[in-house]
Amino acid sequence: MNRTQLIENIRKKGSFLCVGLDTDIKKIPEHLRANKDAVFEFNKAIIDATAPYCVAYKPNTAFYESRGVKGWEDLDRTVEYIRNNYPDQFIIADAKRGDIGNTSSLYARAFFENLDVDALTVAPYMGFDSVKPFMEYEGKWVILLALTSNPGSRDFQFLNDVTGTRVFEHVLETARKWGDADNLMFVVGATQGAMFSEVRRVAPDNFLLVPGVGAQGGSLEEVVKWGINRDCGLLVNSSRGIIYASQGEDFAEAAASEARKLRDHMTILLSVHGIV
Amino acid sequence: MNRTQLIENIRKKGSFLCVGLDTDIKKIPEHLRANKDAVFEFNKAIIDATAPYCVAYKPNTAFYESRGVKGWEDLDRTVEYIRNNYPDQFIIADAKRGDIGNTSSLYARAFFENLDVDALTVAPYMGFDSVKPFMEYEGKWVILLALTSNPGSRDFQFLNDVTGTRVFEHVLETARKWGDADNLMFVVGATQGAMFSEVRRVAPDNFLLVPGVGAQGGSLEEVVKWGINRDCGLLVNSSRGIIYASQGEDFAEAAASEARKLRDHMTILLSVHGIV
Repeated sequence: MNRTQLIENIRKKGSFLCVGLDTDIKKIPEHLRANKDAVFEFNKAIIDATAPYCVAYKPNTAFYESRGVKGWEDLDRTVEYIRNNYPDQFIIADAKRGDIGNTSSLYARAFFENLDVDALTVAPYMGFDSVKPFMEYEGKWVILLALTSNPGSRDFQFLNDVTGTRVFEHVLETARKWGDADNLMFVVGATQGAMFSEVRRVAPDNFLLVPGVGAQGGSLEEVVKWGINRDCGLLVNSSRGIIYASQGEDFAEAAASEARKLRDHMTILLSVHGIV
Repeated sequence: MNRTQLIENIRKKGSFLCVGLDTDIKKIPEHLRANKDAVFEFNKAIIDATAPYCVAYKPNTAFYESRGVKGWEDLDRTVEYIRNNYPDQFIIADAKRGDIGNTSSLYARAFFENLDVDALTVAPYMGFDSVKPFMEYEGKWVILLALTSNPGSRDFQFLNDVTGTRVFEHVLETARKWGDADNLMFVVGATQGAMFSEVRRVAPDNFLLVPGVGAQGGSLEEVVKWGINRDCGLLVNSSRGIIYASQGEDFAEAAASEARKLRDHMTILLSVHGIV
């Protein structure tokens, strides 16, 4: 999916919500667990219930890998289900991959040819040749970790050089030479609050994928206040707050209701900023 | 496998060689490709041929993921084959994972419970909570990226802070507070040459996993000169130079011959340093 289509979908739906499909078999409702396709059936119900309110889905690969071959089958089927039934959804594999160039090409093959998602999250530590192979696919996106939502983000991302430039700013500045706003987004955690304005100083046009609203404590209003640009430029993710909204048989309706609430809030914010 | 056993195996075999099972189906000998288990059959032959000369195997997950569910089956079977037939081999999944704490726990489940490897390579960018979950498994190891072998290592790993400390040194120093020489190794690329002495200044006791000898241009002698410690403290990896030594029907013998050459060179170096 290209940038124009993504922006159009955001405008049409009044939403920049991404639903995180972090489906842990140990956390899905009791009544589904006996089903041999429990994870896929759970995802299917969540997707059908939330699709009207979001523009993107983001399965995190760890949840699927943790179940080995069966997990990869579920991931495959989930992506295929979204593709076939909701072709206007942007699909992100949250895999945080990255390796020497030769090897990153194989991850690109895995995610952009076989699984056929729109975007992949990539870790920046290994530098340009670990990222470039993902940019060689027309219409596909790299979403590079810049400032993450977790407590450990303080360990290395904020280290300062002699000019006062921090590591995450180097990542933003350097990576913008490798790609552009049409194939490169950045991960910036919702918990980083006012740091969004520093990110926007360096990367005014790139879309930002924003995890950490909800369970991790980030605020949607703060994110929008500092992070929005004229195209919206934000995909705000919620995982646990939506998919585990209820542990009962009403889990899908409860997920829909949480997604709808976030969409309604987003529509107001988009309207305040003159985007819808 | 614990540190004592690993050191004992190195002494016994006169080798600190790790064979990288970076098996690309497009690069294995013609006569095997028609076999539906081509990758597993190739790995099995390589393992049987090289096991006398090495102490570790390192499948890089990208090569398996690039083939989807079938690839994960091959990885599973390969690890199981090594476990069952060569229980003294240290098995490393070169996956370069890392995510927020909650999610890293699931990667730990994938690699340390299901796949049951001894060690996993982990990317440091997200900090302590992305690394700690892997350290909660008794007898398992984190191998943290510090200074990688690729050209992109120059982009962020060498950034200097106000005190002249570089990012990779911060990674070494900080990570040593999370683990110790019994559960934490570092990746340092063979192409980094004299930088090994800087690494050893900060991390004198930790094992270093060293890729980049052979195809990437690193020198075994340089690595040993600057990187060896009293326990050896090195696992030097070779992938392409061994597993693709021949494209013909003699691929396994050719691999054995390359591995033996490296082992012979390593035995001499270990002897020079009084370790065997």
